[in-house]
Amino acid sequence: MRTLLLWLARSTWFRDRIPRLPFARRAVRRFMPGEDMEAALDAAARFRSEQIGVLFTRLGENVTRDEDADATLGHYVALLDACAARGLRAELSVKLTQLGLDLDEDRTFERVARLADRSARNAGVLWMDMEGSAYTDRTISLYERLVGAGHANLGVCLQAYLRRTAVDVQRLLPLRPAIRLVKGAYDEPPSIAFRTKRAVDANYAALAMAMLEACAAGQQVRIALGTHDVELVEQLAGHATALGLARDAFEVNMLYGIRLDQQRRLAREGYVVRDLLAYGPAWYAWYMRRLAERPVNVVFALRQVLP
Amino acid sequence: MRTLLLWLARSTWFRDRIPRLPFARRAVRRFMPGEDMEAALDAAARFRSEQIGVLFTRLGENVTRDEDADATLGHYVALLDACAARGLRAELSVKLTQLGLDLDEDRTFERVARLADRSARNAGVLWMDMEGSAYTDRTISLYERLVGAGHANLGVCLQAYLRRTAVDVQRLLPLRPAIRLVKGAYDEPPSIAFRTKRAVDANYAALAMAMLEACAAGQQVRIALGTHDVELVEQLAGHATALGLARDAFEVNMLYGIRLDQQRRLAREGYVVRDLLAYGPAWYAWYMRRLAERPVNVVFALRQVLP
Repeated sequence: MRTLLLWLARSTWFRDRIPRLPFARRAVRRFMPGEDMEAALDAAARFRSEQIGVLFTRLGENVTRDEDADATLGHYVALLDACAARGLRAELSVKLTQLGLDLDEDRTFERVARLADRSARNAGVLWMDMEGSAYTDRTISLYERLVGAGHANLGVCLQAYLRRTAVDVQRLLPLRPAIRLVKGAYDEPPSIAFRTKRAVDANYAALAMAMLEACAAGQQVRIALGTHDVELVEQLAGHATALGLARDAFEVNMLYGIRLDQQRRLAREGYVVRDLLAYGPAWYAWYMRRLAERPVNVVFALRQVLP
Repeated sequence: MRTLLLWLARSTWFRDRIPRLPFARRAVRRFMPGEDMEAALDAAARFRSEQIGVLFTRLGENVTRDEDADATLGHYVALLDACAARGLRAELSVKLTQLGLDLDEDRTFERVARLADRSARNAGVLWMDMEGSAYTDRTISLYERLVGAGHANLGVCLQAYLRRTAVDVQRLLPLRPAIRLVKGAYDEPPSIAFRTKRAVDANYAALAMAMLEACAAGQQVRIALGTHDVELVEQLAGHATALGLARDAFEVNMLYGIRLDQQRRLAREGYVVRDLLAYGPAWYAWYMRRLAERPVNVVFALRQVLP
């Protein structure tokens, strides 16, 4: 099932056709406040009243023309302006391939740098998302270059299913980084990735501990646990407490529409919770990866489709 | 299956009858070199030639008379003498209830102290095993008392399935401890223990990381990973390397007769491996817990029984 869904995510034939089907558009509504910025901003305002922060991302990846990368940049700048105007302390998560990484690394650097500067004016972190393993090295290098150039308010996403991540965490820790740890949602081979849920979970716990230990040792690191695995989050909270850390030593990021009851419960219990609001017309590949991530989501999707 | 086997482990009715059955005696041979000390010493000598260390434990627990606790003490002293005479660098793992913990804590303290002193003469650590959760507090307290009294060559076993262990590790780390981390083999309720394999594995990884981080920070801690989960061991080895630790920063402990091929492979690859040799006539409860731990062991046991 997972492999099939991840294959569908990459298929351009299906990418051109599935989004036109009315039932597919209905199904994706569960995970997306809407296709435009206004819908996302309205959802963010609703979350604010529940003490749940948000993280915006406009769907889309692998742009093939510089104009498209510039348009994405323009969209994000407008979004940050809109947040400032509404007094929303929202942050952004961007995919480097939607800002031109497939085209030119230096121009991508410039676009990310501009968004980081604009985010700093909103007192927020700009998060760089992580894509398939073909981009891991370049994403981490770009992160290091940007931090080295003085952009202190940058965060990066690391994936627990990759075997290399143990080394990447240690490499980044001296940079006073912000790291969002996710399990990983692409189809990676066993030579570079753990493939069983047990192994990925164990690695996730070990990586989170590495960051919590750094935090307990007085190093500056902002930790975001990007997972819907509440049991794992609570287990790690126990370890954080054992290390003498406060509840806000880490934050929890979950996707819009997934386990909202748990997002609310964790927020009520004093966890820092941030809902990732993904929106936009280019939802197809992203949505397929969400279904692949949690088989139960397929059931939800089918339920939406049935009358 | 696990619950049934753990119930069988506690049942005195079955404990009196099963060990008399010839097929049961044949089945246990897989996990036990023999019932007497000589058989264990011979097995240890064979392991030495394969660069695999050993850890002895004489089976038996919950003695109800001081004479039995003293007899266990006498047996272990004789074993340490025999090791010294044969030039074996073997270590012991003892259960506190086989040294009288159900009877009197101070006399148990004295017996453990004597074994620790005798082990120090062999330049070895004396390991205190961990039993069911009714003994966790007393075992840890006794460990602290003994270390406080100057017994620096003492180790203690902690169980990753217990929720409290995150705190116990942090509590013990300042003592320059030796800690053997196991998943845990008793039947504990969900209020105090993680019950799914995924949660136990993730907690195991987090706890091992806490110890590896302490080691990387220059604290003195001897780490033994008591598990047959080779994937988890290799995953943690990756984290140890990422922390800049050498391969011998931790050791791996596995039971006699379980995954011997892996014990040999790990030893060849430069891991410090120690085989836990459990022996003696009182094997019943211990053997049932071994079967409960890994369902595949039941298959092995049945195979031994069939012609």
